[in-house]
Amino acid sequence: MTTNIGILVIGNEILDGLVLDTNSQWIINQLKALNFHVIQKTTVRDEIPVIGRALRRLISNGCNLIFTTGGLGPTHDDKTLLGVANAFDLPMGLNDQALEIVTRQYTDLHQRGVIGSAEMTEPRRKMAILPKGANPLDNRVGGAPGVVLDIEGAQIICLPGVPGELMWIFDNQVLQLLKSKVEGAFAEDVIYLPLRDESTLAPIIDDVMRDIPGVYIKSMVKPYGESGIRLWISAGGQSQEEVEEKVNRVANLLVKRCEDQLIND
Amino acid sequence: MTTNIGILVIGNEILDGLVLDTNSQWIINQLKALNFHVIQKTTVRDEIPVIGRALRRLISNGCNLIFTTGGLGPTHDDKTLLGVANAFDLPMGLNDQALEIVTRQYTDLHQRGVIGSAEMTEPRRKMAILPKGANPLDNRVGGAPGVVLDIEGAQIICLPGVPGELMWIFDNQVLQLLKSKVEGAFAEDVIYLPLRDESTLAPIIDDVMRDIPGVYIKSMVKPYGESGIRLWISAGGQSQEEVEEKVNRVANLLVKRCEDQLIND
Repeated sequence: MTTNIGILVIGNEILDGLVLDTNSQWIINQLKALNFHVIQKTTVRDEIPVIGRALRRLISNGCNLIFTTGGLGPTHDDKTLLGVANAFDLPMGLNDQALEIVTRQYTDLHQRGVIGSAEMTEPRRKMAILPKGANPLDNRVGGAPGVVLDIEGAQIICLPGVPGELMWIFDNQVLQLLKSKVEGAFAEDVIYLPLRDESTLAPIIDDVMRDIPGVYIKSMVKPYGESGIRLWISAGGQSQEEVEEKVNRVANLLVKRCEDQLIND
Repeated sequence: MTTNIGILVIGNEILDGLVLDTNSQWIINQLKALNFHVIQKTTVRDEIPVIGRALRRLISNGCNLIFTTGGLGPTHDDKTLLGVANAFDLPMGLNDQALEIVTRQYTDLHQRGVIGSAEMTEPRRKMAILPKGANPLDNRVGGAPGVVLDIEGAQIICLPGVPGELMWIFDNQVLQLLKSKVEGAFAEDVIYLPLRDESTLAPIIDDVMRDIPGVYIKSMVKPYGESGIRLWISAGGQSQEEVEEKVNRVANLLVKRCEDQLIND
C-alpha cells in the first residue's frame, strides 16, 4: 500500500508569526530519502477540537501516516495528545512505559545539575498520560516522550516541537518504524537555466514532459533582475536505475532546448 | 464581523522539502499589526481539485479572508486560479485589466533589456485568465498579477510565491483592501526566564492566567542544556491602553513568581 503522509503542525506560535516552522521541511527531507510522499500539511492553533478535526480531515484526505509536531510538553498550552484522543474518542490514561521515560529523563537532568529537583510533579506526569492504545517513543534529549498510535488503518506519530528533541526521536525511534513501509525508487535533480523569463520556458517544459512521461518538472523563478530560473526535476518508479536515467535525460534535454531557444532569441 | 484568516500555501516544492515557506510567516506578521487572527494554514500540492477542496474547507472552518501563495505564474504547474475556479464552480475568462498589467510588465522588462521579447505569448496571456468575478492586483515586480475575489461572504486574495512579488503586492495593493476590516486592539511581549525546566513553570503560568484573565501565555523551551525559557504573552481587547497594561502586568508577575521559585528551589 502506498504511504501517503500528512503533517499536522500544532501551535499558536506558528500561526501568530513568532516562530518559523522549520521542523516540517526537515521531516519532509528525511522522508524523501525513503521515497515517501507528503500530500498535505496543516497548521492549527492549540485547541483540542481543532486538532481533532484536523487529524480526521488528513485521514479522510487519504493520509495513512501522520506526523504531528509540537504540543507534547508539560504546560497548559500543550494539547496535542488531548487532540488525538478527541479525534478518535479515546480515553486518556497513565502509560507506565512513558512514565519510566519521563522519570528517567528528570532524574538524569537532575543528576547532571540541569534542573533543581527530580520530583515527579503533576506537570511532568502529564507527559506520560497518553490516549489509550498509544505507545511512547523514547526521548533522550528532553522530557516529553514522542507518541505512536496505530488506529483506523493509519499511523499517527507525535513529535515534540523543540527541533533537537524532534530530530533525536525521528532518527532513533521513528526511522525503524518506517523501514517496513519503504517501496519503489525516487530520483531528483535541480538545475539552473540562464533564462530570465519563465514564460519563455513554459512551452519547453510542456514539450519535454510530453516527450518523457513520468517525470515532474517544477520551475521556480528568482525575482526579476536576478539571473536564472531554478528547475526541479523528479521522478518516482520501481527501479532506481530507471528513474535516475529518466531524470538525467530530462535535465540534458531541458538544457539543450534552452540553449537552442537562447540562440534563436 | 471578526476577520478570521486562512492561508493556503500551494506548491509541490514546499511539500517535497525543496523550498522553506517563509511567505506565510511574513504575511502573518503583517496581519498581526492589524489585529487579524490566523486560524489555520494549509499546504497542498499543485493539483486543481485539491486546491479547490482546501479552499472550501478553510471557508467551512470559519475563514472569511483567505490568502493563497504560489501558483500564479505562466508554467503548467501554476494552477492556483484553476483551483479557485474549481472551488466555486466559476468559468475562467480573459480579464482586460489583468492583460493590461501583464502587457505593461513584459513591455517594461523588454525595454529594460531583462527579456528578449515583449510579445504576448500564450504562457504570458495565461496569467490574465481569471475566474469570473475576480479582479487583478497590480504587480510591478514580476509578470503575474495578484488576484482578489469576493465570494460567499469571503474574500480570497491570491499572491505569487516569489517573495519580492508577494511583498510588493501586499504592501501596495492588499493593505488598502484590509484597512476597512481592522477592529480592536492587540498587545504582546516576549520575555525570557532564567529557568531550564518547563515543568516547573507550568503551575506558575496556570496561576497567572487565572489571576489575570484574557491574557494568553505560551511557553517555548530551548533545547535542554541551553539556558532560558521564552514566554510569549499576548492579549486582545477593545482599548490599546488596556491590553498593553494587562500584558505588562502579566510579564512582571511572571518574572516575580519565577524569582520566588528560584529562591525556594
